[in-house]
Amino acid sequence: MIDLETARRVIAAAEQKAEEIKQPMNIAVVDGGGNLVAHVRMDGAWIGSIDISINKAFTSRAFDIATKDLAHHSQSAGGIPLKEDGKVVGAIGVSGGSGEQDHAVAEAGASVVR
Amino acid sequence: MIDLETARRVIAAAEQKAEEIKQPMNIAVVDGGGNLVAHVRMDGAWIGSIDISINKAFTSRAFDIATKDLAHHSQSAGGIPLKEDGKVVGAIGVSGGSGEQDHAVAEAGASVVR
Amino acid sequence: MIDLETARRVIAAAEQKAEEIKQPMNIAVVDGGGNLVAHVRMDGAWIGSIDISINKAFTSRAFDIATKDLAHHSQSAGGIPLKEDGKVVGAIGVSGGSGEQDHAVAEAGASVVR
Amino acid sequence: MIDLETARRVIAAAEQKAEEIKQPMNIAVVDGGGNLVAHVRMDGAWIGSIDISINKAFTSRAFDIATKDLAHHSQSAGGIPLKEDGKVVGAIGVSGGSGEQDHAVAEAGASVVR
Repeated sequence: MIDLETARRVIAAAEQKAEEIKQPMNIAVVDGGGNLVAHVRMDGAWIGSIDISINKAFTSRAFDIATKDLAHHSQSAGGIPLKEDGKVVGAIGVSGGSGEQDHAVAEAGASVVR
Repeated sequence: MIDLETARRVIAAAEQKAEEIKQPMNIAVVDGGGNLVAHVRMDGAWIGSIDISINKAFTSRAFDIATKDLAHHSQSAGGIPLKEDGKVVGAIGVSGGSGEQDHAVAEAGASVVR
Repeated sequence: MIDLETARRVIAAAEQKAEEIKQPMNIAVVDGGGNLVAHVRMDGAWIGSIDISINKAFTSRAFDIATKDLAHHSQSAGGIPLKEDGKVVGAIGVSGGSGEQDHAVAEAGASVVR
Repeated sequence: MIDLETARRVIAAAEQKAEEIKQPMNIAVVDGGGNLVAHVRMDGAWIGSIDISINKAFTSRAFDIATKDLAHHSQSAGGIPLKEDGKVVGAIGVSGGSGEQDHAVAEAGASVVR
């Protein structure tokens, strides 16, 4: 279960990574139903990435797969399922940098609940 | 300017009020351009209120007015402009309870930057 | 025919009225096909009124009638057909103030081509 | 800050370039929040390009980048951020000709505030 407290820990870890690589990001966390639990737009992150981050989180949960592994969206890294004991309980979506940067930040967030 | 740090303080004040009145809420903050800065769904808040909270924040910024004062949307309380030195710099949108509850929580949040 | 030069004269007259009544407005002009020719958002006018002004202009042309005379939209003044020699050639749409203010500004603009 | 007066100077410069290359254009300017400030359709410009010009301006602001540099939208030149002192304060979007023509006209407009 991704409650708000968990979503905040996921976002905090993702933000820390984004700051490390100096790339402001939009970060979204959805629960097991694919519904938004929390979103933040870091200062200086693109407004065009707001919806993209939310959509990546949704898509990642919707197919229980990292968006970088979706064949026809291979350029759309940044969405990663959140798993507890091997079970998908939600997802994180990140948008704001290159595909690699988005994925690295999403991974940092996802690592909190894995 | 509503940066992420300010948005978080607004949301924290709104959450505290929501906890006081024991009504979990969706809370969204937009900046001066009407674009989302941060959103949280408190545990137990309706998933149907996610988009409503975001829309209320946008609408409130779009017309620089509390949504409860929009004549033809009088039932849509919960959106309040955020003002610094009398200038509208963003808005908060709250959804999850009665119109009165939504408005009270939004007001608690807005009071942080007024 | 509403060409860009005519649209600009319509908008200029509308703007002047808006300044007189000290109410910043969104002002849009569409041609005989209902398609946008020009739009301006005066400084301080609501961003929520951008689309409304364009829609009022379209609606007014679409039904060749002032929007204040549309029964089920009686509150939506601010759209007025532009007529040359009694023939509708386009429309102006104004949004940003009360229905009366919107209509007065639209009328000032429409008077240029009547 | 892109106010209406600035938007008009941007559009005037873009129009002049469009006349030089004899290609009528739709030209749109958005502010820092991605919201439309002004739009013109030059006489003879495509009605199908109205929304495209507005979307290009929004997209360019949303990602703070010329639309011709968006990898997966490489065909969509014509959107360029407007910068004051190196800070993005809005964007211009142009549609009506080839990608190269759109970009040249947008550049002429953007040069006014750079």
